[in-house]
Amino acid sequence: MGAYARLPRMRITALAGGVGGARFLRGLRDHLDADPSLAEAELTVIGNTGDDINLFGLRVCPDLDTLLYTLGEGVHEGQGWGRADEGHLVQAELAAYGAEPQWFALGDKDFGTHIVRSQWLGQGLSLSEVTARLAERWGLPRQRVTLLPMSDSPVETHVVVEDDEGQRAVHFQEWWVRMQAAVPAQRFVAVGMDRATAAPGVLDAIRRADVVLLPPSNPVVSIGIILGVPGVRDALRGSSAPVVGVSPLIGGMPVRGHADACLAAIGVESTASAVAGLYEDFLDGWLVSTEDAASVRLPRAAVHGRPLLMSSRAAAADIAGAALALALELKAA
Amino acid sequence: MGAYARLPRMRITALAGGVGGARFLRGLRDHLDADPSLAEAELTVIGNTGDDINLFGLRVCPDLDTLLYTLGEGVHEGQGWGRADEGHLVQAELAAYGAEPQWFALGDKDFGTHIVRSQWLGQGLSLSEVTARLAERWGLPRQRVTLLPMSDSPVETHVVVEDDEGQRAVHFQEWWVRMQAAVPAQRFVAVGMDRATAAPGVLDAIRRADVVLLPPSNPVVSIGIILGVPGVRDALRGSSAPVVGVSPLIGGMPVRGHADACLAAIGVESTASAVAGLYEDFLDGWLVSTEDAASVRLPRAAVHGRPLLMSSRAAAADIAGAALALALELKAA
Repeated sequence: MGAYARLPRMRITALAGGVGGARFLRGLRDHLDADPSLAEAELTVIGNTGDDINLFGLRVCPDLDTLLYTLGEGVHEGQGWGRADEGHLVQAELAAYGAEPQWFALGDKDFGTHIVRSQWLGQGLSLSEVTARLAERWGLPRQRVTLLPMSDSPVETHVVVEDDEGQRAVHFQEWWVRMQAAVPAQRFVAVGMDRATAAPGVLDAIRRADVVLLPPSNPVVSIGIILGVPGVRDALRGSSAPVVGVSPLIGGMPVRGHADACLAAIGVESTASAVAGLYEDFLDGWLVSTEDAASVRLPRAAVHGRPLLMSSRAAAADIAGAALALALELKAA
Repeated sequence: MGAYARLPRMRITALAGGVGGARFLRGLRDHLDADPSLAEAELTVIGNTGDDINLFGLRVCPDLDTLLYTLGEGVHEGQGWGRADEGHLVQAELAAYGAEPQWFALGDKDFGTHIVRSQWLGQGLSLSEVTARLAERWGLPRQRVTLLPMSDSPVETHVVVEDDEGQRAVHFQEWWVRMQAAVPAQRFVAVGMDRATAAPGVLDAIRRADVVLLPPSNPVVSIGIILGVPGVRDALRGSSAPVVGVSPLIGGMPVRGHADACLAAIGVESTASAVAGLYEDFLDGWLVSTEDAASVRLPRAAVHGRPLLMSSRAAAADIAGAALALALELKAA
């Protein structure tokens, strides 16, 4: 742990989607808090905004909210998203008025976030500025955590599907939530990405990091979307920091979500090796599940096997600690 | 009751503010429902929108909502406004985020109305169109009640006040709700009225009415604001229908609200006579409280005294019935 001592204010940057990323990062924060020599470490989280969607005239940012609620100790633990002790009056009213869509569940407390975000965006604040204000309420600065949206420009992941209604593109959330990813995706289109730029601080957070971590978020529609933001991939390639990823697969299956369906859509096998291949131009270390370790050989990255099931908050902290240890080992090497 | 028989599909038009107007009109609807010869009567309500306000980026129409909730059997009976069995999670969240203002209480179900209204307005629908959709959910068409906003143009009543912070104009709601009308109003300004036109159907509803009723709403900031909409006062003057008003005062005092403070601001005495004076160019009948009857003499309008306290739903129906009877008596004369 000599490496730790040399980095008292270690800067860790992570790219993250929703539930898996948030649980991993809360585990990382727990791990840092438990070690006095790491207490000053700073964590910058670059959150996916490709899932963002306008619902009922309000701007909803599912991944940013899951990160805020989880890191801010307000998340519904069982679900992994949404708020604990949530009410459900508002959406029932919207349904009574015939407002669409009704397939996306928003709780009453959660509506508070969407209302205030929409209000502030409407006043001309950028999504970065709004996110910083929301993070203030959730105590992230106090934890030395900075949450940045990947971009202040709206980017929306759409999914090309084909079913009885023919071929068409639907919003990612419609595919993921309403269709439960059961209709095969033909491809993903990040609408707006051609005009998008990285949000303020995003590229610097990668370039100046001591360590870059990729939590076990969806490699296609979470990490993959962030990697598509102009400059992000180049910054990762150019960074002197070790980049360590955590496989989202255990024995080739996603623990939650539909990573396998997303990988199939882009023609990538659902294996820890194939996922690492998506990151091969910048990946230095790859933490895989014990049962996958034997089958993974990467030309450029160090591979470590260990249990990866985030079955508890403590387990998540252990996994995050292992990813950080691998990064520091690579850094010291 | 011969007059009734001659008007099987009697068209009644009413101008209304919030709580008092809504209770009176629900009473009128009850009265009509109780009499088979009146069951086909049609009621058009022209609602004040001068109280409307943007809160948290959402469009809130307090008087229209009170009319919808009351006529739609969803109102909080004790308060007279807002929803029955209401939750309070959303606004607590907004407070936690530091969103302003916090002096206006919005419940969770109520937020549903504001969200869907704002969404539909954002899609380009007019306030009339939005109000018709909201009224559908509350069953108003089924009751042969049409609710029209006085105008589709935004009109906001502002109040000029002077206190320790000097002279300034505040939104009507800030004066009414936050200051509880305790800071003397110097005058009222209907911001936007110079560019406003009556909403579709408003002038026709007055011109083609068989009877026009003025419920015991605030004569200055509810009825008075509606009368300021271009064409409304002329339509009332020109209508062949009898116009019958119900005094909002009992023994010179408002039953609820701050009508006396509003009257003082415009230099009008807080008496049933003086209020009738505000309507003198079109008023045909004036229903006043028993104790006020002796002191009211109007040159052009018939005056009837009777108990006016809407102490119950049945009492409101009796008062509304008396106003209608007076109108029909004048019509038959």
